[in-house]
Amino acid sequence: LSPYFPPDQPKRFQNVHRLFGVSNILRILKHVDPSKREDTVKSIAYEADTREKDPVHGCLGVITILQNQVSKLKDELAVARDQLYLLQHQTSLLHPQVHTCSLTLSPSRVIDR
Amino acid sequence: LSPYFPPDQPKRFQNVHRLFGVSNILRILKHVDPSKREDTVKSIAYEADTREKDPVHGCLGVITILQNQVSKLKDELAVARDQLYLLQHQTSLLHPQVHTCSLTLSPSRVIDR
Repeated sequence: LSPYFPPDQPKRFQNVHRLFGVSNILRILKHVDPSKREDTVKSIAYEADTREKDPVHGCLGVITILQNQVSKLKDELAVARDQLYLLQHQTSLLHPQVHTCSLTLSPSRVIDR
Repeated sequence: LSPYFPPDQPKRFQNVHRLFGVSNILRILKHVDPSKREDTVKSIAYEADTREKDPVHGCLGVITILQNQVSKLKDELAVARDQLYLLQHQTSLLHPQVHTCSLTLSPSRVIDR
């Protein structure tokens, strides 16, 4: 494993070793294409670091926060697009000759939740 | 570990055992408050399942996808809010008496990246 764990980052190896154990990491790496082993070690090290910071939730804590953020942003975007649609409609009724915006918008909500 | 791994979900235990090993899970659980142990096992099982599906990236793959999605949504929201601000400004110049929208908007981009 030494090529993947530079000696100036002992904490990295320590966390990974503690969470997964060397034999488990070697087994994961054995089943991965050699060109992907560097990325595999990086993601394993990330998981180990995250588990050290949050022993209860680990990566799932980060994923839950990001999922909530995506959900909130989708809601905000849907509201902004609805308002934009209404305002464009209102402006085009008042001034049919005015080109307010070149966008084609629909009031439909963001669907791909 | 048996209370956390119901016998009708053998795959759950199998994945967790393969990725972390029983002794590592027991060590994690020992350092966690008993009331948090159920959540801890759930997040460990999630990590193991995700690593089985994507042996190279594991949870980091999910996190990267979500981070890209957050970034894209923030950009789209900033564009929609800028357009809304411009349109409101344009409408208020044409018809100062018309209340187009009760929102208070500014053209500033979403800052908390």
